Amino acid sequence: MLHDLFTPSVQHALDLAGIFVFAISGALLAVRKNFDVFGMAVLAEVTALGGGLLRDVVIGAVPPAAFTDLGYFSTPLVATALVFFLHPQVERIQGAVNVFDAAGLGLFCVTGTTKAYDHGLGLTASAALGLATAVGGGVLRDVLANEVPSLLRWDRDLYAVPAIVGAGVVAVCIRFDALNGVTSGVAVVTAFALRLLAMRFHWRAPRAWNRH
Amino acid sequence: MLHDLFTPSVQHALDLAGIFVFAISGALLAVRKNFDVFGMAVLAEVTALGGGLLRDVVIGAVPPAAFTDLGYFSTPLVATALVFFLHPQVERIQGAVNVFDAAGLGLFCVTGTTKAYDHGLGLTASAALGLATAVGGGVLRDVLANEVPSLLRWDRDLYAVPAIVGAGVVAVCIRFDALNGVTSGVAVVTAFALRLLAMRFHWRAPRAWNRH
Amino acid sequence: MLHDLFTPSVQHALDLAGIFVFAISGALLAVRKNFDVFGMAVLAEVTALGGGLLRDVVIGAVPPAAFTDLGYFSTPLVATALVFFLHPQVERIQGAVNVFDAAGLGLFCVTGTTKAYDHGLGLTASAALGLATAVGGGVLRDVLANEVPSLLRWDRDLYAVPAIVGAGVVAVCIRFDALNGVTSGVAVVTAFALRLLAMRFHWRAPRAWNRH
Repeated sequence: MLHDLFTPSVQHALDLAGIFVFAISGALLAVRKNFDVFGMAVLAEVTALGGGLLRDVVIGAVPPAAFTDLGYFSTPLVATALVFFLHPQVERIQGAVNVFDAAGLGLFCVTGTTKAYDHGLGLTASAALGLATAVGGGVLRDVLANEVPSLLRWDRDLYAVPAIVGAGVVAVCIRFDALNGVTSGVAVVTAFALRLLAMRFHWRAPRAWNRH
Repeated sequence: MLHDLFTPSVQHALDLAGIFVFAISGALLAVRKNFDVFGMAVLAEVTALGGGLLRDVVIGAVPPAAFTDLGYFSTPLVATALVFFLHPQVERIQGAVNVFDAAGLGLFCVTGTTKAYDHGLGLTASAALGLATAVGGGVLRDVLANEVPSLLRWDRDLYAVPAIVGAGVVAVCIRFDALNGVTSGVAVVTAFALRLLAMRFHWRAPRAWNRH
Repeated sequence: MLHDLFTPSVQHALDLAGIFVFAISGALLAVRKNFDVFGMAVLAEVTALGGGLLRDVVIGAVPPAAFTDLGYFSTPLVATALVFFLHPQVERIQGAVNVFDAAGLGLFCVTGTTKAYDHGLGLTASAALGLATAVGGGVLRDVLANEVPSLLRWDRDLYAVPAIVGAGVVAVCIRFDALNGVTSGVAVVTAFALRLLAMRFHWRAPRAWNRH
């Protein structure tokens, strides 16, 4: 065990906050797709917990945290209830939701990388799983909603790159034996800030050269 | 190990019956989507075994039962052959197929919850996995067929709720140390009856308030 | 451990070659779907490593080889770079890409079956997982790209059947204690040749009788 980024209770509170905003994005998509309240709950759970679930199954940490921590499981239900009753109001603060989503992205790419390394994976594989932790839930959300994953679309602001950078910073810190609460926090903030900048200035990634 | 719901051989026969009707629904969707006979077999296998596969991977019961019991694997192939040769006749008895599907739903939400609890998960997590066992195969079927999962759509009769109730009854029984063959049977029948009623009276779940 | 098909280093080189051509097919689809370079990399990784990942999670061989061998992980990135810069040229040699893809199909159905059997699965289950190893990545690719999996479509040349035959030959060889480098090679070549013939003569599989 490397360490916890922060004290365990702070870490847990941050995890729940990240899960909550991811769940909001799932529930909002469910409303746009005209799903019923159970479809909203399913999409909220999958968006919020799917990335960590993938990581835990791959590293053999079963049963996954999503199924052993009741708070992880119930938080998306709270988000579902909120969107169910206050959908227009939640839509109206979409900008704030996006900022929190960026914070969740930064947090999960860092904790995901750290947990994978703790389970014995190499640095590159750990960073890849950190990325999967951060973006996997959103991909599953879009697949279940029968949409092209927004992660893959060229007309969306950069989403994977901030998570790759955050996970990469963690891997480099581990490599040089410099991962601690401070450097972990720096990695989270770096990914968070990059995502905010990508949204603010509509950074896009290039497509293949010479497409027909 | 809590217990088997019934004697092992009865349990196994029920499992195979449930797998068979789920496989029929997969093969029928494959015909509607104009897939070839191998696409039918893939969709039948995934529909019938996908939910249990998800559960087993999550609880760490690998290799999953789907790959260790030859009967589980071959039953969907029999269903595929039946639909391949007698597709119009099977379509004509769609009503009966739906009744058996409801029975499979009731059975699998109960056995899934029980198996997850046997592997050390908490009551809420066990009930969630019981639900996933019962509905997971159908979701995978729709995702592979590139359709919006019918589980999530508001214009479909309630499907998740009967399974949630069935899994919940099992969890409550375990909590009060009252799970046995009789109470398990009650849970199966409750879920089965709720699903039949939902189909008969076209019960729907509500969508979010104040959608635009 | 049954054996390696060939010497370990030859086996590894063949694996990387198979991963490379599968990744090319993922990156090409990403270009056709208008994804950006990160979408191309994700689709290349999933296509190339998804089948083996599914197999390893099911048989409990975690962390999967995809995350422990740096070569497996980086090869799809090389394929992505190639398609990114030279997309029109790669499209122009699509015929050659298809031939190599057929070789990858043959190779992976054989190594997948062998690995599953080595982890204690029965012969039928091992052959099924060999098939899943060979075709799983392509199915995940199409699901992520929000397309009907080309594996399931009747208007595509046979793809599953050559892999089933290859996996079946391996299972029969194991059954009669005759699996060695030579018979494994025969299984690879059989699947490879069948796929080439299926492409050359546009072999299709039948659809259900008496569709409306």
